[in-house]
Amino acid sequence: MVGLLNQPHHDGSPSYVSTQAPTLGQTVQVRLRLPRGPGAPSSVTAVHVRTTPDAEVHYAEAALVREDEHEDWWQADVVVHNPVTGYRFLLSGGPADYRWLNGTGLHDRDVPDAADFRLVASDAPPPPWALDAVVYQVFPDRFARSAAADERPAPPWAIPAAWDEPVTRDRRVIGDQLYGGDLDGIREHLDHLERLGADVLYLTPFFPGRSNHRYDADTFDRVDPLLGGDEALARLTDEAHRRGLKVVGDFTTNHTGARHEWFETAVARPDSPERGFYLWDEDGGYVSWLGVPSLPKLNYDCAELWDRVLTSETGVVRRWLAEPHALDGWRVDVANMTGRHGAQDHNRAVAREMRRVMDEVAPGSLLVGEHTHDFSTDIRGDGWHGAMNYAGFTRPAWTWLRDKGFAPKFLGSPLRVPRRGGEAFLETVEDFMAQSPWSVRAHSFTLLGSHDTTRVRTLVGDDPRLVVAGAGLLLTMPGIPMITYGDEVGMQGDSGEDGRRPMPWDESRWDTTIFEAYRALVRARRDNVALRRGGLRWVHADDDSLTYLREHPDQTALVHVARSAHAPIRISTRYLRGVESAVSAYGPGLDRQEDSIRLSADGAGASVWVWPGAPRAPW
Amino acid sequence: MVGLLNQPHHDGSPSYVSTQAPTLGQTVQVRLRLPRGPGAPSSVTAVHVRTTPDAEVHYAEAALVREDEHEDWWQADVVVHNPVTGYRFLLSGGPADYRWLNGTGLHDRDVPDAADFRLVASDAPPPPWALDAVVYQVFPDRFARSAAADERPAPPWAIPAAWDEPVTRDRRVIGDQLYGGDLDGIREHLDHLERLGADVLYLTPFFPGRSNHRYDADTFDRVDPLLGGDEALARLTDEAHRRGLKVVGDFTTNHTGARHEWFETAVARPDSPERGFYLWDEDGGYVSWLGVPSLPKLNYDCAELWDRVLTSETGVVRRWLAEPHALDGWRVDVANMTGRHGAQDHNRAVAREMRRVMDEVAPGSLLVGEHTHDFSTDIRGDGWHGAMNYAGFTRPAWTWLRDKGFAPKFLGSPLRVPRRGGEAFLETVEDFMAQSPWSVRAHSFTLLGSHDTTRVRTLVGDDPRLVVAGAGLLLTMPGIPMITYGDEVGMQGDSGEDGRRPMPWDESRWDTTIFEAYRALVRARRDNVALRRGGLRWVHADDDSLTYLREHPDQTALVHVARSAHAPIRISTRYLRGVESAVSAYGPGLDRQEDSIRLSADGAGASVWVWPGAPRAPW
Repeated sequence: MVGLLNQPHHDGSPSYVSTQAPTLGQTVQVRLRLPRGPGAPSSVTAVHVRTTPDAEVHYAEAALVREDEHEDWWQADVVVHNPVTGYRFLLSGGPADYRWLNGTGLHDRDVPDAADFRLVASDAPPPPWALDAVVYQVFPDRFARSAAADERPAPPWAIPAAWDEPVTRDRRVIGDQLYGGDLDGIREHLDHLERLGADVLYLTPFFPGRSNHRYDADTFDRVDPLLGGDEALARLTDEAHRRGLKVVGDFTTNHTGARHEWFETAVARPDSPERGFYLWDEDGGYVSWLGVPSLPKLNYDCAELWDRVLTSETGVVRRWLAEPHALDGWRVDVANMTGRHGAQDHNRAVAREMRRVMDEVAPGSLLVGEHTHDFSTDIRGDGWHGAMNYAGFTRPAWTWLRDKGFAPKFLGSPLRVPRRGGEAFLETVEDFMAQSPWSVRAHSFTLLGSHDTTRVRTLVGDDPRLVVAGAGLLLTMPGIPMITYGDEVGMQGDSGEDGRRPMPWDESRWDTTIFEAYRALVRARRDNVALRRGGLRWVHADDDSLTYLREHPDQTALVHVARSAHAPIRISTRYLRGVESAVSAYGPGLDRQEDSIRLSADGAGASVWVWPGAPRAPW
Repeated sequence: MVGLLNQPHHDGSPSYVSTQAPTLGQTVQVRLRLPRGPGAPSSVTAVHVRTTPDAEVHYAEAALVREDEHEDWWQADVVVHNPVTGYRFLLSGGPADYRWLNGTGLHDRDVPDAADFRLVASDAPPPPWALDAVVYQVFPDRFARSAAADERPAPPWAIPAAWDEPVTRDRRVIGDQLYGGDLDGIREHLDHLERLGADVLYLTPFFPGRSNHRYDADTFDRVDPLLGGDEALARLTDEAHRRGLKVVGDFTTNHTGARHEWFETAVARPDSPERGFYLWDEDGGYVSWLGVPSLPKLNYDCAELWDRVLTSETGVVRRWLAEPHALDGWRVDVANMTGRHGAQDHNRAVAREMRRVMDEVAPGSLLVGEHTHDFSTDIRGDGWHGAMNYAGFTRPAWTWLRDKGFAPKFLGSPLRVPRRGGEAFLETVEDFMAQSPWSVRAHSFTLLGSHDTTRVRTLVGDDPRLVVAGAGLLLTMPGIPMITYGDEVGMQGDSGEDGRRPMPWDESRWDTTIFEAYRALVRARRDNVALRRGGLRWVHADDDSLTYLREHPDQTALVHVARSAHAPIRISTRYLRGVESAVSAYGPGLDRQEDSIRLSADGAGASVWVWPGAPRAPW
């Protein structure tokens, strides 16, 4: 019998914080939940909440607002005095008589502020639809071809490929291989998103470039004619919106292609305004993304660049959010490096200005930044709403799901991703997420992989049920689940490039077990508010299984994910109030004993049970 | 037999980093020390160093540069691409085959970046004298009176007190009680600093105010006439410099007094430039420090204020560093709150500009900011050189040294400082310090207390030897030791105000055991480069004892501090190369056995042994 439910808990979800989107200066109520019973901290006689307004320590006394035989609830006011307001709880009483609760748990000595809980103030909160979204990532060249695509001649740089042709392994030409997918092709397959249950289409870049990935834009002023041009994008967003779907674009704020019209002007005319858009050395050389000459880096010291990208009515950010293209948000490529070079650091300023501009032109639009390692100091929720959460989800998930034999590399690491147990997953996820506001966690894309990584189906090796386990985590943990096209049908690929295979539309090539599991898990998420908006409390973690609660004032969800068969785990029902009315939302029914539940698995997979109600705050 | 010396180690000291003051763009060599033997990590087959230039992950391969039967050394290049450049080591091989080493030790899973090692680039490195300094803090009203002080009438707000009178307990008048110490009095007692061995005099504010503490300045343009005026300061710094001592002032960048000439102009003439120096609400009310009306807060949105404080030739910061007053640095009051109010945050910009200005007018001057909690995100070494290190030294030291009965409060905390063992001291110190660059740690004031806290002699209760233990930590750990006047003679005081007692010049009132211990420990520090500039490796920690090495290429120091009598601890000499030539630098000789040393204590106290040599890098 193992349980973490006897530990004090707080997170940023509605049961614990009175408002999910405070404004600057607002007073917010925060609550601490203090279980009673075996293993729970005893004799708490007082609780204070420490904040640091203007970076000076301040204490507020909490009041005991509810108590019963199972747990106590303490509550205090926190003034959101700064845009990012940190807080933590100080517990008095008992033998230790001095314990902090922050995002990494209970500590009986002083700890640094990095894992303090945090509230983010904003005049324009994140879009309300984002917390309910399931995102489907499409790489336009590889998803679907419309009939019109056949009419378009390949450009000189391209090596045309037939839809069934394998992705080349020749790295010299890997970017040139053009399958000819287009936006009308995507539009014609929006029913696939609906069948899956995804409601946000995230498109990797649609600007013309000199590669199949288009992260080397020639211009930000038009949609690639190879994809069907501006009209095809308008048709796509129009059709998507008609179906109740959102569409998010992908913008390289960090760099352009070397054939970009700005860069060509900058090279040809050193006295042009565009010259200032880039970073030059004395010899006329220029700074580029990781030294790749085809990707010259943008220079945000330049006011005119700010205008052309962000501020101006016709700037890139506004233009594609406005009618008729009407994107619902941007994913920002290389968000982590944007505006940074040596002593120059405009990163946060660019993020905040981009958000301000987006809130102006398209209220309710989403802004998510790419970041492949610890994003906690970059992404505070006042600029990018969230990150591509590789650090706090993908990598720890990989360590748990990866096959014993196949050890994938991850984005530039010289070492293979190691294999670790469930405790390491829990600790890694919580360690990273403790450093971010709950709002950032909730608005970050969780993902099992992307167009830049090994496919999850390849990662897990022989057993496809491990993909189901991964999808179980993806669709039941906090964050916005992002599914890369083809993952849901078991598409393979042992690297980012290899994973960009054309979507197989012949369903006989699909792994229907995986597809049906994805569909059912997406449905479970969409049907159950606890999975979308609940907090997170861990119940159990061991080498091969992970169990947690998602709790929302209206509903509780219990999730059990296994990476292999394991003997039953017994969990006391003491801390699972309402579990007697649990019903399955995915997988088998719950095995209830007299005063406990039994969780077991005959192989990799996931189970979700839900029941109505959960701690409801009096606010 | 316990030992931490078998663990991999890196810190920012000269044995591990090729330059202590890199410039932007410089390539620096960093080294990892990997012990062999019992308990040491085995089978390390490769080492990489991860950096994050412009916030993108980058790996460099390390080379095995030295190996012997005791240890391996790996070395890699780190380019100081950003002003603050983080790095960590990735170890391959062995069963884990994937382990990170950062400032909190070895981790076999991914960890956030907060505890990465860090290099700080600067065109103007911190003053070279700072690492060798021992600072003596003087509260001018309470240190010494010159004969001239008798001639000065007390101002109307003051309640004059005789030197032997107790500090009042009446909080309503505690700031009014004026003992009449002055700068000539300090000058006449500089021999006391020399006798103690301190070489930096840090003066709390000398500008005129309406209180004995003078943190409520009426002007920044002249020295309080009650202290002897501008000429007395010039005489003091002149005499100090003649003796080879430095003098550091104290400046309230965050606020002025409500009788400050700027504030009076701002109130009287709403159209004056000074109006913009403060933060007003619609009703004409103003923002003040923690709501204290006598301390209106400065508004760094105002360009003219920047000029008057920082930039101008006659600005506050420059003026007092220039001849004839020639201060050698500033301690900044409420550095943590400076430039911050709600959505406004100029803190880092003020710190950087202040440093730039100081480096211009007085190269080699020191800039230390007050900060009473976690300063790691505020103080990166590119603005303030360091902090008042309450969080990473004072508070953990108090938890270890405090009497079982007397539990002091600390600066606004609602709880008494708890009592904890030596392991908690080690963990707390390292947890906080891991978040700061080594340079910040080394340039922060370590302190057992200040004019704002309980006196250490009162804190420890009955046993004065605990003060010696505290002084042992203070004078042998990394950081610039700061001794508050009177601590060295055992002065008491159960709060900040109560601790501001007049310095007793009648030596019969001194605790000469404490004084002689301070003198000898200061001498040990000043005589031994390892204590001033060495790295820090922990040897042992338990409830009642702390043992560590300070290692410098020229010398090793072994420090043992006890808070009570304890049974002997045996430490293998395997990892203590050179220990056979150890000599005592403070306390008894070293108890050497065949292949170990024995550390014991018959009560609270400290011992220091030194021997020549330590790991010497080939750079």
